[in-house]
Amino acid sequence: MEHVFIVACSGSVLRFVIWDRMELYLQVHSRENVEVIYLKKKVNSGSSLKVIPLGGLELIGMNITAFEYEDSIVVVDCGLSFPDDDMLGIDLVIPDITYLKENQDKVKGFMITHGHEDHIGALPYVLKEINVPVYATKLTMGIIENKLKEHNLLKGTKRKVVKFGQSINLGQFRIEYIKTNHSIVDAAALAIYSPAGTVIHTGDFKVDYTPVYGDAIDLQRFAEIGKKGVLALMCDSTNAERPGFTQSERTLGRIFDTIFSEHKSTRIIIATFASNVDRVRQIINSAYKFGRKVVVEGRSMVNIIEIAQNLNRITIPENTLIDIEQLKNYPDEKTVIVTTGSQGESMAALSRMAGSVHKKISIKPGDTVIFSSHPIPGNEKAVTKVINELSRKGADVIFQDVHVSGHACQEEIKLIYTLVQPRYAVPVHGEYKHLKAQAKLAQELGIEKENIFILSSGDVLELSEEKAAVTGKVPVGTILVDGLGVGDVGNIVLRDRQHLAEDGILIVVLALDGSVNQLVSGPDIVSRGFVYVRESDELMEEARSIIEDGILHCLDRGISDWGKIKSVIKDSLSEFVWKKTKRRPMILPIIMDV
Amino acid sequence: MEHVFIVACSGSVLRFVIWDRMELYLQVHSRENVEVIYLKKKVNSGSSLKVIPLGGLELIGMNITAFEYEDSIVVVDCGLSFPDDDMLGIDLVIPDITYLKENQDKVKGFMITHGHEDHIGALPYVLKEINVPVYATKLTMGIIENKLKEHNLLKGTKRKVVKFGQSINLGQFRIEYIKTNHSIVDAAALAIYSPAGTVIHTGDFKVDYTPVYGDAIDLQRFAEIGKKGVLALMCDSTNAERPGFTQSERTLGRIFDTIFSEHKSTRIIIATFASNVDRVRQIINSAYKFGRKVVVEGRSMVNIIEIAQNLNRITIPENTLIDIEQLKNYPDEKTVIVTTGSQGESMAALSRMAGSVHKKISIKPGDTVIFSSHPIPGNEKAVTKVINELSRKGADVIFQDVHVSGHACQEEIKLIYTLVQPRYAVPVHGEYKHLKAQAKLAQELGIEKENIFILSSGDVLELSEEKAAVTGKVPVGTILVDGLGVGDVGNIVLRDRQHLAEDGILIVVLALDGSVNQLVSGPDIVSRGFVYVRESDELMEEARSIIEDGILHCLDRGISDWGKIKSVIKDSLSEFVWKKTKRRPMILPIIMDV
Repeated sequence: MEHVFIVACSGSVLRFVIWDRMELYLQVHSRENVEVIYLKKKVNSGSSLKVIPLGGLELIGMNITAFEYEDSIVVVDCGLSFPDDDMLGIDLVIPDITYLKENQDKVKGFMITHGHEDHIGALPYVLKEINVPVYATKLTMGIIENKLKEHNLLKGTKRKVVKFGQSINLGQFRIEYIKTNHSIVDAAALAIYSPAGTVIHTGDFKVDYTPVYGDAIDLQRFAEIGKKGVLALMCDSTNAERPGFTQSERTLGRIFDTIFSEHKSTRIIIATFASNVDRVRQIINSAYKFGRKVVVEGRSMVNIIEIAQNLNRITIPENTLIDIEQLKNYPDEKTVIVTTGSQGESMAALSRMAGSVHKKISIKPGDTVIFSSHPIPGNEKAVTKVINELSRKGADVIFQDVHVSGHACQEEIKLIYTLVQPRYAVPVHGEYKHLKAQAKLAQELGIEKENIFILSSGDVLELSEEKAAVTGKVPVGTILVDGLGVGDVGNIVLRDRQHLAEDGILIVVLALDGSVNQLVSGPDIVSRGFVYVRESDELMEEARSIIEDGILHCLDRGISDWGKIKSVIKDSLSEFVWKKTKRRPMILPIIMDV
Repeated sequence: MEHVFIVACSGSVLRFVIWDRMELYLQVHSRENVEVIYLKKKVNSGSSLKVIPLGGLELIGMNITAFEYEDSIVVVDCGLSFPDDDMLGIDLVIPDITYLKENQDKVKGFMITHGHEDHIGALPYVLKEINVPVYATKLTMGIIENKLKEHNLLKGTKRKVVKFGQSINLGQFRIEYIKTNHSIVDAAALAIYSPAGTVIHTGDFKVDYTPVYGDAIDLQRFAEIGKKGVLALMCDSTNAERPGFTQSERTLGRIFDTIFSEHKSTRIIIATFASNVDRVRQIINSAYKFGRKVVVEGRSMVNIIEIAQNLNRITIPENTLIDIEQLKNYPDEKTVIVTTGSQGESMAALSRMAGSVHKKISIKPGDTVIFSSHPIPGNEKAVTKVINELSRKGADVIFQDVHVSGHACQEEIKLIYTLVQPRYAVPVHGEYKHLKAQAKLAQELGIEKENIFILSSGDVLELSEEKAAVTGKVPVGTILVDGLGVGDVGNIVLRDRQHLAEDGILIVVLALDGSVNQLVSGPDIVSRGFVYVRESDELMEEARSIIEDGILHCLDRGISDWGKIKSVIKDSLSEFVWKKTKRRPMILPIIMDV
């Protein structure tokens, strides 16, 4: 009876749920005398399970998926994404949760799989709109709490730390947390049990038989649940295009040892992802072996390592970690700096060192700098820029083969499918091409094409034993966060920023006396981002005189409609500027009535 | 006497140059009676050869290098580069040629190695400043002429087509064109002979033993010149980080055949680089074999294929090429479309097809779309976007292993070094990390560290048999081209564009009666790219009233200095906006005197 869960206990009556399909009420008279008072097979009332991704399927980022069964909704993850190149000035992007707000009464909570920004980053914004409990494993919750604190949301948010193997009952759902491996400690897959059947959501995962912290992925549990029958598998697609198996995180330990043994006489600086606690731990282990002190640098990494230490998710040999201020007390060859900036982020610690604007660390000729990372698509040029800057300063830069991915490659994806044997496949976490690559794998493993669903955000996928189909669409979208503004920058503002960025702005100001329809002052032209004005006197003067002619012509003809005058200014100036420069700056006529 | 060059012929006296070190004057009396009247060993007067890169060493792009010996300068290549992400609105970037203009009398001509934009693209701009002859091989010159025509420079520019093996005498220099292989037909290396010694410049090259058009790289000639003694080798560094050998272009022929045989029932669309004539030729060959008609689409590709056809650089089986208008007359499975857009360029033909804005071709479910290319660093996200769009439309997208590089990998670089055995190594064509990777190879091959020079643009490297050193610096830089403007957008304008792009602009206009120091109209706030104003009435009204208070306060205190009033407006508005939004839009106060 290992899979019996106590659901409720009132007086001496206990209610159990067995495999989510059977309810059992026991009257406990004494230890020896237990009476079954009610046994009900929990039959699906005919409702289907709705799977509604609200983000995460057009890109890697902004993962959030609602699971709905009758009056209950649980939401898996609540991530952000980073702005595209054309989202000028935007800090981050969060999902539109209109659907959750409209069904607020149903929403039972957020089930978080792990502590990466694309899975937790939107929580502070979303919780302000819809305050429901948050469930997560230990380190994940530690990182979330740090975030909620910054947003003053810690007190107002119900939170529950979940252990692997533990289940949470939420409305019609039970959700079980299953141990997986990933590039962050405490990552989980979820088994989502509903009366209509079970869905397994892998979260972001890899199969690591020899993880640095904690156990290997709980493959037995995947198999066991699979054996009982799984309706749908929602599996990480990030590396679905890559053949083979992702290497164990532990392989890097030996690589660090080798690098340390080959660079005994130089300082070592290693950049990696702030949240990869195991990576940092292995670096510290190598440093300890080779008698070096370690400085952790970069705000986000310092934060996460501190959280991991407090939660016993990283063990650090005593007297190994030192403060950045103590660096000067040790010879270079006895120090290691672990730092953020492995993606070439311009404000991160390594980029500041490379650009000579870091306040405490300067790159010296001979320094060994290691990128323990791989550029995320879109960051290649930024990373290369930092590598070149470091090289020019005389550093020896190592940027290949000091990283392993946190995501499952094809053989691992096949393994999970084979253990789980789902009826339906719903590839998640990826751009379209990644989802499609996983769909192809699923088909190779014998899942019928019509049982594989590549969804778009907003699709409502209804699942039951009998059938599965996309039956509707809910409103979804992206909300742009710029400074304190959430959603106040939309397409019009972005289009204006794009226009301003391309060719700048020409502002034409003039003052009219409306009563007599006479030009009182101006027109003056002020420009920004167009040409360097001091060297373009002639052009600007000619432009001014063309506008003046246009305005006077209007006034002479008795035109007092300012809209008309503005459009004359726009048209004549725009035509003149295009002819002269083949550019189209924004033109903004401002008329003052005096 | 194979390496004797007739330099001049006056009457019956012939002047020869033998190996650039000896001048021989012959009086030809008759076929049998030739008298040596003068034999002079052309001794180096002690001057050194100056190698001055004016671009191309901080990035891949904008290749241009001056070679100077006493009163003579020849310039190898004249390329452009494409703008960085932070050069908002800029179309292209060309080198600053101040040094050439200052030494205009010395400059004998441009020696172009091949027809890629990063080697020829700045010519139309530079020739307007300094009109000297241009030397290039046949296809290269065809592409250059097409460019000069667009800029109305064809008539005014002296041009000479050079054959492989042929030499050009320019002042104190002789320059020999040597056959190489690259991703464009008619690529050349140059042997630059000067009294101080010989420099070999590889241009962009690979070693292709089985090229599609023309001969393999002339390795014998490299060896022969090497045997005679080479001062310096300037070798392509693009792939210096990659071990092994670059595959032959011809290997793709078999790959295309395989793809065609596996996709007999669908339309095939192949994107590749517009200038890779051999690639297009192989696609056409496969199409012909499989009974398909070919459409070439995309302006730049159409242009180059036309030029290559006119110059017999591509042979196309009769009745294979059809016009895009004829497509509808053939069933899909009998057509191939070769197109531009392999880098995800938003305006290129393939991107327009993917985005459903191409006027003549729509992607259909089942189409096979092939990227015969590899994303150039920085283009990864754009390429992925197009792949996802195509996949979503139902196309089967193939984007791996249908491309070979045009640049030499490590084994090829080692081969050239071993044939040429230069005294000095000067890695070119690459970012710092590429140059450094080649320097490492050169050292492995036995070149002393102090004889390897990683230059920066503007460095003056003086070379002679006895010594080599960087002895000076000439002015260099980048000039931004925006529309018709060459150099009228500089740092201030770019900074303004960046600022406008990030947070937009707030314009504050008011009219003052200067005579009585009174506010006549305004202040009004106009914003662009800041927030969507209709939804921010309150914010804007509050801002307006704060400014008004500030202005009235100034006027009340009798302040009539407009500069002072403007700075009050800027400060108060900027503080208010930062507090409310954590954004810093550009603030532009405009005061009109009425």
